[in-house]
Parts: sequence; structure tokens; C-alpha cells
Amino acid sequence: MRRILLLTLVTTALSGLAASANELRDIALETFKPLPSTVPAVPGNPATPEKVDLGKALFFDPRLSASGVFSCYSCHNLTTGGDDNMETSVGHGWQKGPRNSPTVLNAVLNEAQFWDGRADDLAAQAKGPVQASVEMANTPENAVATLKSMPQYVEWFAAAFPGEEEALSFDNMAKAIEVFEATLITPAPFDAWLNGDDSALNEEQLAGLQLFMDKGCSSCHSGVNVGGHGYYPFGLIEKPGAEVLPPDDKGRFAVTETVDDEYVFRAAPLRNIALTAPYFHSGKVWDLSVAVDIMAESQLGEELKPEETAQIVAFLGSLTGTVPSVTLPVLPAETSTTPHPTTMVVQ
Amino acid sequence: MRRILLLTLVTTALSGLAASANELRDIALETFKPLPSTVPAVPGNPATPEKVDLGKALFFDPRLSASGVFSCYSCHNLTTGGDDNMETSVGHGWQKGPRNSPTVLNAVLNEAQFWDGRADDLAAQAKGPVQASVEMANTPENAVATLKSMPQYVEWFAAAFPGEEEALSFDNMAKAIEVFEATLITPAPFDAWLNGDDSALNEEQLAGLQLFMDKGCSSCHSGVNVGGHGYYPFGLIEKPGAEVLPPDDKGRFAVTETVDDEYVFRAAPLRNIALTAPYFHSGKVWDLSVAVDIMAESQLGEELKPEETAQIVAFLGSLTGTVPSVTLPVLPAETSTTPHPTTMVVQ
Repeated sequence: MRRILLLTLVTTALSGLAASANELRDIALETFKPLPSTVPAVPGNPATPEKVDLGKALFFDPRLSASGVFSCYSCHNLTTGGDDNMETSVGHGWQKGPRNSPTVLNAVLNEAQFWDGRADDLAAQAKGPVQASVEMANTPENAVATLKSMPQYVEWFAAAFPGEEEALSFDNMAKAIEVFEATLITPAPFDAWLNGDDSALNEEQLAGLQLFMDKGCSSCHSGVNVGGHGYYPFGLIEKPGAEVLPPDDKGRFAVTETVDDEYVFRAAPLRNIALTAPYFHSGKVWDLSVAVDIMAESQLGEELKPEETAQIVAFLGSLTGTVPSVTLPVLPAETSTTPHPTTMVVQ
Repeated sequence: MRRILLLTLVTTALSGLAASANELRDIALETFKPLPSTVPAVPGNPATPEKVDLGKALFFDPRLSASGVFSCYSCHNLTTGGDDNMETSVGHGWQKGPRNSPTVLNAVLNEAQFWDGRADDLAAQAKGPVQASVEMANTPENAVATLKSMPQYVEWFAAAFPGEEEALSFDNMAKAIEVFEATLITPAPFDAWLNGDDSALNEEQLAGLQLFMDKGCSSCHSGVNVGGHGYYPFGLIEKPGAEVLPPDDKGRFAVTETVDDEYVFRAAPLRNIALTAPYFHSGKVWDLSVAVDIMAESQLGEELKPEETAQIVAFLGSLTGTVPSVTLPVLPAETSTTPHPTTMVVQ
């Protein structure tokens, strides 16, 4: 009799837990979406194995920079979370970029690219750093001349863009990089949980998820990338200090020239956030707990208790995903017509 | 009858060719050696899968540099022949290194490391760039503190150096990198030919090999790495111009402080030479044909005919090998105790 009672109690308790887990999942699924099970398609830029391989080669090729020092991989390092773990990136001539380098992982799922969303997609984004004087400091003409000087690249572009008269072009370089980058999606425990695996998140992470929704974090950090869409003023309730929000970077204002867009940024996508310190566009905050507290105060007017911060940080840890296995490409060798690298800084 | 005669003639011609191929191979095998079929063992530093994996992680980790910008991979890029395709490498603070970065591919088979042979082995070599102020500009203390701040690295070192009280040390960092680098050997058509495959080299390459031996190139560039051992003055017969041989870099003189060692360098290993322009310790020559002509004049007092140069260059092309497939490691994430990177240049 006692054993039957015990069993009944345990069963009731378990089904209670399951019910509440299912309830939380139902609510969460109104706000978040698990990663797709296949590589996201890029509108207007269909992926083929040839294009993905070409894109991978280009992503790793330092000869796309004027100096030969930097490739896409330099600031979007796939061994360290898809970013470079620096406040702001170091580029040509040891110049520092204006904003923290965002992760390339899952970036294909962002509504727009860059902290101010000034590029509509990853192809548009890829053209930026190649030309930026403080990053790769190259010109489209020199990048194309470099690629054209290597017969293997000419073949690869022809195979990736069949039937195009000018297959090897700066635009197609960016398109190939985009389809490679689209492969960089990182399924995480949170996806497993959203997909129905109760054991994928622990109690602390579940409590963190609950808080993340209850406190209002998920008003901006939602969807498949837990952010990465929508534009919001940094300091909606209370402006953070100048150290974190430097007054001379007015964010999206530079894109729209609308006063309403002063200090407005795209909500950061939070997948793999535990790997991508330092935080914010300024890269001034190294500790995820501190970043969470700053967000709570500046955006929500909330002062979190230490255990609440810890729970939210635990939940954010469940967004750390598995990086797809990437084998290094073997790049074509330069020829006698390949432009030489230059470390000269043009002022 | 006619057919029989023809067949006899063809058979005789073929066996004549085979005989001469075998003869050339016999002579070549007195001077060269094919790559071993397994990863070379490193004396005093036995390889284990754990140590090789740790070494790979360290090789790719930019956090071994003070700035977080440079890893071993930066200047020994495995996608572009194991070097960086620059005259001299760019390092911390955009400073330029004094000499051309040599390839890491097959470097384990060199008698000693660096252009002047000042490091006995790859473990000793690996400690150099990490500390050099114009390269990674780090200190052993900061490198070890960085690694120790990440529990995953502590575990990996313990597994790679079992039973050692201080498994995570600067020395063991270098040892792990060494056993990873030992895996980077690149079997080439020349190895296949040395191993008996007549079809691996074409007529022009065979003629180039013959010339390479007849003219005396192989007096210095011999052995398994077609160089990489022995020290010789650059300009044995005739000093090349100051552009190629800058007067302020006296080579091995800086190591031995012996007048005889002025402008003496270790004979360059020639495997993958077609991939590793620009050439010489100064990195001033971009064209392999020009480099061959300079060598012939300065070391042998020979003026090569254009077709001879072309044949030698064709032979050197047969030293371009297959780079082993390398999958990018996923590195441990920083923690709150990880030292922050610094781009500051200490004068």
C-alpha cells in the first residue's frame, strides 16, 4: 500500500513537472524559434557545393586584404566563437575599428548586418571590411585583380557562377562568402529544449529563461537568433555611462540621419554570447553578468538580484551551440601577376 | 614481321627509358630521401593524440599573443603553404619582422629552426615568436596565466602531460605545438617518383632534377627536406645586391659571433617552394625563376640559360605536396580571470 502511494505521489510530481515544462515551452515558442535543421537558404543566392567551397576559400584568404594580414577569419575567428574577443578589432596599420566585431555564427539569421543594420544581408556586409581603411583596406579592383591572377580561382568562380559572363567579380566574391557563412549555424541546448528535450536545460537555466521572458529581455531578444532584429535605443530607460556608450557613436543615426535613431542599435543576437566577450558595440564590458545587469537597468529599469543575474547568465549559456566542423581550405598559390601586399597606410 | 619489329623497337625504347629513369633515381637517392610514410617522431617529446590535439589548439589560439591578433597560424598559414606570403611578417603594433617567415610544413625535418638555425627544434622555435616584441609580444608568464584561466586548457594539458606536477607550463605549450607541427608533412610528386613511380615526374621535371644535381644545387639542398640542414654563406661565389642581401642582417654571425659566419644562413628547405614566395631571408624576390637565377650566380657562379631555369623551376614544382587535412579546433572560452588583450606597444 505504501509503495503504491509513493509511486502515485512520484508520478503526480513528475507529470506536474512535465506539465509546467510543457507550459513554459509553449510560452517560449511564442517568442523564440529553434534553429532550422538544414542550412538556411539565402534569397536570391542559391547555394551549391561549388559556391560554398569557393566562399570558404575566400573567407580564409588573407590576400583579400591590402596587407595580406587579414582575412574574414581574422575578426570572425571560428575557433573562438566567430568573433575576435577584442574590444574593437585591429586592422590595417594597427588601426582600431570603431565597434566590437560581431560573431559570424548564425549571422545569416539576423534581419540585417552590422550593429546599426546598415547592410541588408551578409553579401552586402562582406564587401564592407574588405574596403574599410581601418580593416582590410583593399579596393574592389585590387581584390578582383588578386583573385583573377590565380587560375584556380578563375575556375572556381566559373564553377560557382555557371553561365555568368563575368563570374569572377567583387559581387560574386561577396555572394560566395555569404553562402559559406550561411552554413555556420550552431544548434544549442536551448534548441534541443525547444524541440522537446526536457533534459537539455537544467533548473537554473529554466529559471533564467522564465526571468528572461518575465523581466522583458525577450521583448527585444527574441526569434530564432534571440535578437538580431529590431532597432532600439541603448539606454531606453537610463543611458549607461560614457565608457559603455561613447557619446560620439550615435549608432543607427549615421544610417538614417533621423534624430529618433540617435544611439539606436540593432538588438544583439544572443546565440553563443558566452563565447563572445567583450560585450556591446563598444566592447567595454568583459563579464556577461555585468552586461546583463547593465541591460536590465538601461533598457528595463530593473535592478536584478545577484541570483536572478546568475540564472539569466545560466540560461544564456544554453545558447552556446556546436560549431560545424570546418576543414581548412588549401588556397591557390600566387602567380607572377598577383598584386603584392602592401602594409602602407594611406591617410 | 613488321609488327614484331615495331614491337621490339618499342619495347627496347621503353626499357631504355626505364633503365635511364632507374639510373637517375639511383643517383637521386644518394642525395635525397622521400618523406617517411608516418609522422616523424620528435626526440624526447613523444606524440599522443591528446598532445597533438592540444598542440593544434595552441597553434590556432590568438590569445597567445599580447594583442589577441596573432596566433602561430597567422604567419604560418596552413591555407597558403604554411607561411604568410609577405616579405617579412607583420606583428604587434604593425611592426615588421626582420626576416621572411619560413613555412611550418615539413619543418620538423629541418636540422635546426629559423634562417640562422638558432633554435635546435620546433619546441625551442615556438617560444620565440610568442615573446618577440615585433611578433606576438607576449611574456611566458602572461601566456601561462591566459591558458590557466581556462579550465578546459588545464584539463587538456593534464591529459597531454600525464603525471607531471606542473603540466600547464610554457615549456609544455611549446612541446605540444611541436608535436602538432610534426604532423604537417606534405608528400609530393617527387616522393612518389623517389618511391618508384616513373609517371610522377614529367620530362621537364626530370631534366630539371638532373640539372639541379649536375649544376651543384643539391650540394646544399639535399636530404629529405631538399635543404634545411647545413650553413652556407649567401654569396659564396658572388654576393647578391644589397636589396636581396641587406648588409645589416649578418645571419648566423648573430648566433655564433664568428667572423666566418657573416652572411651565413641555413640552406633553405625547398619543399613547397612554389607556394612560399617571396624568397630569401629578406623576402625581396617574388619570382621563383629569378630566385633560381640569383642562387645559381651567387652560390655556383653559373649563368643559367632560360630553358635551364625553366626546367629547374619545373622540378621544384614537383616538391609541392599535399597538405594534411586540418579541421579547425574549437578553443576554450575566456573566463573572468583571463588577462585582457592589449594593443599597446611597449618601446
